[in-house]
Amino acid sequence: MRVSFIGSGNTATQLALALYKKGIRVSQVISASIENATILAQKVNAQAGDKLSGFNAEKTDILLLATTDDKTPKIGAEITDQNRVIVAHTSGSVNMDVLELHKKHGVFYPFLSMQKNIEANFSHTPFLIEGNDEQTVSALKNLAEILSDNIVPANSQQRQMLHLAAIFANNFVNNQLAIAEDILAKNNLSFDLLRPLLADYFAKLQHRLPHELQTGPAVRDDKATIEHHLNILHSFPDYQNIYRLLTNSIQRKAE
Amino acid sequence: MRVSFIGSGNTATQLALALYKKGIRVSQVISASIENATILAQKVNAQAGDKLSGFNAEKTDILLLATTDDKTPKIGAEITDQNRVIVAHTSGSVNMDVLELHKKHGVFYPFLSMQKNIEANFSHTPFLIEGNDEQTVSALKNLAEILSDNIVPANSQQRQMLHLAAIFANNFVNNQLAIAEDILAKNNLSFDLLRPLLADYFAKLQHRLPHELQTGPAVRDDKATIEHHLNILHSFPDYQNIYRLLTNSIQRKAE
Repeated sequence: MRVSFIGSGNTATQLALALYKKGIRVSQVISASIENATILAQKVNAQAGDKLSGFNAEKTDILLLATTDDKTPKIGAEITDQNRVIVAHTSGSVNMDVLELHKKHGVFYPFLSMQKNIEANFSHTPFLIEGNDEQTVSALKNLAEILSDNIVPANSQQRQMLHLAAIFANNFVNNQLAIAEDILAKNNLSFDLLRPLLADYFAKLQHRLPHELQTGPAVRDDKATIEHHLNILHSFPDYQNIYRLLTNSIQRKAE
Repeated sequence: MRVSFIGSGNTATQLALALYKKGIRVSQVISASIENATILAQKVNAQAGDKLSGFNAEKTDILLLATTDDKTPKIGAEITDQNRVIVAHTSGSVNMDVLELHKKHGVFYPFLSMQKNIEANFSHTPFLIEGNDEQTVSALKNLAEILSDNIVPANSQQRQMLHLAAIFANNFVNNQLAIAEDILAKNNLSFDLLRPLLADYFAKLQHRLPHELQTGPAVRDDKATIEHHLNILHSFPDYQNIYRLLTNSIQRKAE
């Protein structure tokens, strides 16, 4: 199995390094920046390039497009693979069919937040796999199984919904904690005060589902406390709006 | 040091058990329900009662009011302590001065979510302590130090703000995860898919602050992805509103 990459960012870097470590041949790394392509190519003993026309379909079995979401359709359309290669992108939110010009096309999406300089551990990372025919799905699954024990066949809608769910589970969770941090800081209190409570919550979350763990004034319909909190938030109108909307959301779920 | 309790709920139960284990004499447990008072009193070798008039100020140094927030002011006003006793409540959101009829009064607030039947571990629990004079603060601190290494002097406003911050950090965090769970379930995907991402995030949070950890389309102002997410949320208007409001909140923080 020989793999090539378009892109040299976080995803391309971590996938190429991990595959190379497992003994997979990485043939080419093509990126708009020849410097970045070269840095990655040298690490995985591949050929670097900065032109899509330099892609050599004879030296690759699977081509992974690890570019930004907005560029993926255009690059997918420009690549010529002479119907020899499986062309797959690595994006959470791009439809598979932007690659439909290619006889064998699919998606190879590692569901993990990656950074260039922090080695990713893919051992249990969900890899969402999609392909336009069974043979393609099977080849992409085999590649993912080299890295992870957590392979998930999923269509484009499911993949997009997982990506969206992660916005709530990660970005919006962090936003709520940042608000808590800000409220504490403005009252000369340390965020560390919340750490025991958070540790306790995340221990519970290990073997329970969020819908079983809702506590607080909203779910027990404690109107006096809710009213009191809205009052003391009068100097933070943004937080007051969020408090009101999320309290309503919790109450609607509890109905 | 002798302690008595008004209340026999989660907080009274866990505090009484923990103090009793540490060798503190628990004199009385008074609760509107004589059954509940008796269950707890038997566990800590105390006298049970169901009348506030049965409180014996000669047998107690510190009386802890561990009742629901709405009842605390009334019970505080009805208790007669002959100016002998420190009367403190254990609530996060009730002002200390609802107890001002008592010569020595204060607050003894363990910042932990407690349940009746799960033994609380107070070792590192923040105890927020307040008192109307130095001697009272000192006595309540000494009592808290028997249970925890994390004593935090805090006035009533700080305590209320911590309680409010915890709504964001716990109740609203859980709500965001419950939304993610719901979006996944409606697309036949398991919440387990999010667990590696969550574990990764909470590992980072151990030694960083939330405002340093914000990622996602909102903070990088990725308008195309935000628009796409709002579109695919058209069938979940509640979640669409939350997505919009929290995206704005993240962007205002980033300004």
